[in-house]
Amino acid sequence: MTSWPPIRAELAGIEPYGAPQLDVPVQLNVNENPYQPSAETVADIAASVGEAARTLNRYPDREFVALREGLAAYLSSDVEAQIAPEQVWAANGSNEVMLQLLQAFGGPGRTAISFAPTYSMYPEYARDTNTEWVVGHRESDFAIDLEKARALVEETRPHVVLLPSPNNPTGTALPPEAVTVLCEAVGDGGIVVVDEAYGEFRRTGVPSALELLSEHRNLVVTRTMSKAFAGAGLRLGYLAADPAICDAIRVVRLPYHLSAVTQAAASAALRHAPELLGYVANLREERDTLVEWLREQGLEVADSDANFVLFGRYADRHAVWQGLLDRGVLIRETGPDGWLRVSVGTPDEMDAFRQALTDVNGARA
Amino acid sequence: MTSWPPIRAELAGIEPYGAPQLDVPVQLNVNENPYQPSAETVADIAASVGEAARTLNRYPDREFVALREGLAAYLSSDVEAQIAPEQVWAANGSNEVMLQLLQAFGGPGRTAISFAPTYSMYPEYARDTNTEWVVGHRESDFAIDLEKARALVEETRPHVVLLPSPNNPTGTALPPEAVTVLCEAVGDGGIVVVDEAYGEFRRTGVPSALELLSEHRNLVVTRTMSKAFAGAGLRLGYLAADPAICDAIRVVRLPYHLSAVTQAAASAALRHAPELLGYVANLREERDTLVEWLREQGLEVADSDANFVLFGRYADRHAVWQGLLDRGVLIRETGPDGWLRVSVGTPDEMDAFRQALTDVNGARA
Repeated sequence: MTSWPPIRAELAGIEPYGAPQLDVPVQLNVNENPYQPSAETVADIAASVGEAARTLNRYPDREFVALREGLAAYLSSDVEAQIAPEQVWAANGSNEVMLQLLQAFGGPGRTAISFAPTYSMYPEYARDTNTEWVVGHRESDFAIDLEKARALVEETRPHVVLLPSPNNPTGTALPPEAVTVLCEAVGDGGIVVVDEAYGEFRRTGVPSALELLSEHRNLVVTRTMSKAFAGAGLRLGYLAADPAICDAIRVVRLPYHLSAVTQAAASAALRHAPELLGYVANLREERDTLVEWLREQGLEVADSDANFVLFGRYADRHAVWQGLLDRGVLIRETGPDGWLRVSVGTPDEMDAFRQALTDVNGARA
Repeated sequence: MTSWPPIRAELAGIEPYGAPQLDVPVQLNVNENPYQPSAETVADIAASVGEAARTLNRYPDREFVALREGLAAYLSSDVEAQIAPEQVWAANGSNEVMLQLLQAFGGPGRTAISFAPTYSMYPEYARDTNTEWVVGHRESDFAIDLEKARALVEETRPHVVLLPSPNNPTGTALPPEAVTVLCEAVGDGGIVVVDEAYGEFRRTGVPSALELLSEHRNLVVTRTMSKAFAGAGLRLGYLAADPAICDAIRVVRLPYHLSAVTQAAASAALRHAPELLGYVANLREERDTLVEWLREQGLEVADSDANFVLFGRYADRHAVWQGLLDRGVLIRETGPDGWLRVSVGTPDEMDAFRQALTDVNGARA
C-alpha cells in the first residue's frame, strides 16, 4: 500500500464532482429555477415540517405513501397518461434514484450506455456501482442517430441505457420513436431510463416519455423537483415505471432513505404546484427569446427544450466564461469544446447576461 | 434472461430489509427514542426549515459547513476529545455514511469484516457495494476475543472492519483495547469503523472510540441523530475521522446529498441538544432497571450499553414475540436463536412490556 488513505485505486486523485459555488450577483451556472417560492408556499413547507417534527423521534414511513400519491397525481396531470402511486419511486435527488437503478440493474459484469455529449454524472454513477460504461456519440446537431444507437445496443447488450430528454448540456429532446426503438432493442435484458429532469420545460408539441410507459415495461422515466418545482434545495428525485421495477429498487434502497422532513416538505411543495409550475411558462418564453437573441449575435445555438441554452462556438471559451464572471455573471464551462451553457434566469438576469456577453464580445472584437 | 425485471442475480427474490411497521400501542421494536421533541424544539425546526425554504430554488451548501460545525461542537462536548469540523462528515442516515465508506474503501476485490451476531444491515452494505463479506464470531457473552479477531484480520487483510459499539442487537460495548488492537492489526491497508449509533447510551465509565481518534489515522467513528437526539425521522448520520478520509468520501458522495431542509432541521435539533439528550439519562436508568427485572424473572440478559436489551433464551421465541404483540407490545425477533430484543421506552411503556411478558410467561407456564 503506497498511498494513504486506502481509497480504491480507480478513485485515487479524482476531484469530487461539483460546479464552483461562487458568490456572484447573477448565477446562471447550475440550471436552478430563479424564482423563489412564495411566502405562502414557504409557510406551508415550514408548517408541514413542524407537524412532521412532532414525531421526529420515530422512523419515517419507509414507503412514503402520501408523497408517492402526490407525485403520481402530479405526473398524471402533466401528461396524457394515468400514473399510479405504485409506479412511483423517489429518493434524495434523481442522482440517488440513478444510483439505485444502477445498483439493482447494473453493477460488476454489467454494462450501461449513453450518448455523448451528455450529463457528466452518468459515468460517475457507473463508476460508483462498478458498472461498465460504454458511450456512443450524438450527431453534430446533438440528436441520436437511431440506426447507430440500435447497433450499439445490439453490440453491447446493455443492462441500463441512460437517455436524458432534454439532454444536458445540449437541451436536445428525444423524439418518441427513439424511446420506442431503444426499448425494443434492449428488450427484457435491460432497462431504458429516460431522464426528464428538465422535462417540464419541453416546447409545445414535444411529448414526454411518460406517455409511452404503458407500451414498454422496460421503460423508466425519471423526474426531479429541483428544476420545474424550484426545489433544488429539497433534493427530491423520482421515477415512474412498472411496479416490478420499483420492487427491485426496494432491495437495494437504504432503509428509511427519505426522511420525514423531506417527505413533509416535498408533499407541501406539491400542493403548491400551480404556483411553482407557473414560472415554467415564463422560463420557457425567456429561453426562446434567449435562443433567438444569441442567434442574432451570429452564434451557434442548440435547440433547447430545457431551462438552459448551449451556445458557441468560441476558440477560447474559457476567456468568454471568465469575461462574463468578471462582469458578475456566472455561467458553466461545459459541453463539447468551444461551447458554453447558460441557465435561463429572470428577465433582469437575462438582461445582465446579454449586456455582459455583448461587452465581452466587444472587448474581444 | 429467464426472469423479469432484469435485476442482478444475487438480488433476485430477496425481500427488502425492514422491520414490520405495525400500528400497535407500544412500539419497542426499532430502538427509537420514545420521547418526542418539545414544542419549543419543534417550533425551532419548523422556523429554521422555513428560513431555508425561502431559497429552496437554489442548491444546498454542498459542504454543509454550518452543520459540520454544529456536529463537531457537539462531539467535542460528549467526549474527552476535541473534534474539528473538517474531521466530520454526514449523510442521510448512518447507513448512507456506511455505504459511502464501502464505496470508497470497499468494493469489488476488497473485503469487509465484522463479528456476528451483529447489525443485519452490514452484510447488505457489503452486498450493495460488491465487497466481499467475511464474518467472525463473538463469544457466548457477545464480546470479541481479541486474539481471534487479530488472527482473522491477519488472515483476511480486510479493507474495512465494521465494529459496532455498543453492538446491535446485543448491546455489547467494545473495550478501548479492542479498538487499538484492531486498528494496529489493520494498519494502513484499511479502515476500522466503530459504529457508535447508540454511543450516547453507554454506561458510566465506558469510553467512546472518539477518544482514540488522535492515535489511529485509520479509525472512523460513526454516530447518528436517530437515537440519542430522538431524530429517527430526520435521517442524519455522521462520522468523525482523519480529514483525508472525509476527502476520500467526497469522491463518491452524490452531489448535494444533504438537502437544505435536512441541514436546517439537523442544525436546529443540535441547538436543542441539552433537551434532547436530557432523555438519555432517563433511558439509561430505565434500561438498567429493565435488565435487573428481566434477570429477576430468571431470564438470560446481555449486558447493555444501548437503549435496547437482548434477553432469552426461549425454545420458541416467535411464540413469545407473538404473545407480546397480541397484548399490544411490539418487540423485535432478532439476534441469535432463542433471544428477543426490546427497545427501552418510557416508564409507562416498560410497565406495559413487563405486564405483557409476565402474562405471556404465565400463559405458557
